[in-house]
Amino acid sequence: MRLFELCAADRDIRFSPFVWRVLLALAHKGLAVERVPCRFLEKEPFAPSGSKTVPVLEDDGTWVADSWRIACYLEDRYPEAPSLFGGDRGRALCRFVTHWADRVVLSGLFPMIAADVCDCLEEPDRSYFRESREKRLGQDLYALRETREERLGPFRAALAPLRAQVSEQPFVSGQDPAYADYAIAGGFIWCRGASALEVLEPDDPVHAWRERMLDLFDGLARKAKRAH
Amino acid sequence: MRLFELCAADRDIRFSPFVWRVLLALAHKGLAVERVPCRFLEKEPFAPSGSKTVPVLEDDGTWVADSWRIACYLEDRYPEAPSLFGGDRGRALCRFVTHWADRVVLSGLFPMIAADVCDCLEEPDRSYFRESREKRLGQDLYALRETREERLGPFRAALAPLRAQVSEQPFVSGQDPAYADYAIAGGFIWCRGASALEVLEPDDPVHAWRERMLDLFDGLARKAKRAH
Repeated sequence: MRLFELCAADRDIRFSPFVWRVLLALAHKGLAVERVPCRFLEKEPFAPSGSKTVPVLEDDGTWVADSWRIACYLEDRYPEAPSLFGGDRGRALCRFVTHWADRVVLSGLFPMIAADVCDCLEEPDRSYFRESREKRLGQDLYALRETREERLGPFRAALAPLRAQVSEQPFVSGQDPAYADYAIAGGFIWCRGASALEVLEPDDPVHAWRERMLDLFDGLARKAKRAH
Repeated sequence: MRLFELCAADRDIRFSPFVWRVLLALAHKGLAVERVPCRFLEKEPFAPSGSKTVPVLEDDGTWVADSWRIACYLEDRYPEAPSLFGGDRGRALCRFVTHWADRVVLSGLFPMIAADVCDCLEEPDRSYFRESREKRLGQDLYALRETREERLGPFRAALAPLRAQVSEQPFVSGQDPAYADYAIAGGFIWCRGASALEVLEPDDPVHAWRERMLDLFDGLARKAKRAH
């Protein structure tokens, strides 16, 4: 089994939030994987998948792209391993959590850390990333970085549902973690890997949850190489 | 089984979003219930519960307050009836959805419709409601109503995770509805019952989902008496 990952100029820095979802899902399932670093513009290695973006998983000749599709593939292909979703209802509700993670956590973090991500890259990735992301955001990444402190308050406020959840139970998924946790954690691991910005206050229950996520699987995410 | 509900000056108008969660959960379980209307300041009927707010359920001498606790009670007490959660993992994830519904849907709707709710009440409920809610919001309810059109855009934008979810599958809970749907729908039924404000655009997938929710259980929510 091989997982094609996004890497920085330093190939040991792997920061894609979507890849982190899959790495944690693979660890949850107890599946060993060969991790293949690819820069933004290196798409040849996973071309057979038909996807232009990672994560891409290759499992004994089967190619699967997109973090959600990979999670569903792993759940269906390895049903005897610990469940990521807890059944059909859990899978459907987990999808809602991934939508929330995409639209609140990742979208909230991106303007704050995009310039830091750019700084981790080298040409031609750097130009590609800057141009495509500035077009998407409609703003200069480095100008955005200058104003990021103002975004912290609204970002933290938008985490209210997560804060309420992890104040009541240790993980989003209940007493133990599962894919809903990994879907959200991917964003925080991405931020931690690419940026020195601390987006959570130390007394925030979300901070304590993130610490628990970093500790999982013998510190898989905590041990990841950071740019800062 | 009796459910203590919040009612307006017209006792047939029942608009509490939390009560609607329970009404839909009871219908899902196929349980018949006697609905007992209580005004804001009528707390005697459910005093044995120890709760100062509805919904309160009384089931053969057992008193349960709080919509989430009632849902859990129904799930555990009537396990042979259709499941509200789909197992422990589904229950945990459903809790996240209720937190999102509270903090995004209800909190987003409230400043827009609070004056309309107030208009449905009569003394002494009206004074109690206005004073307590203006203290909570820090603003005059009727002044808030004047600016509500400005709030529609941000409110609709904040529904992005729900929009993505119901664009992919008919219900938040998957192919059929369950408690996660009811938790969110309660807010929209509250809004529809108390206010003439249309908060969703007709081509919004959330609008289509809300129509499906109004149709459930032989139009239980659609048939509810409205103030407007």
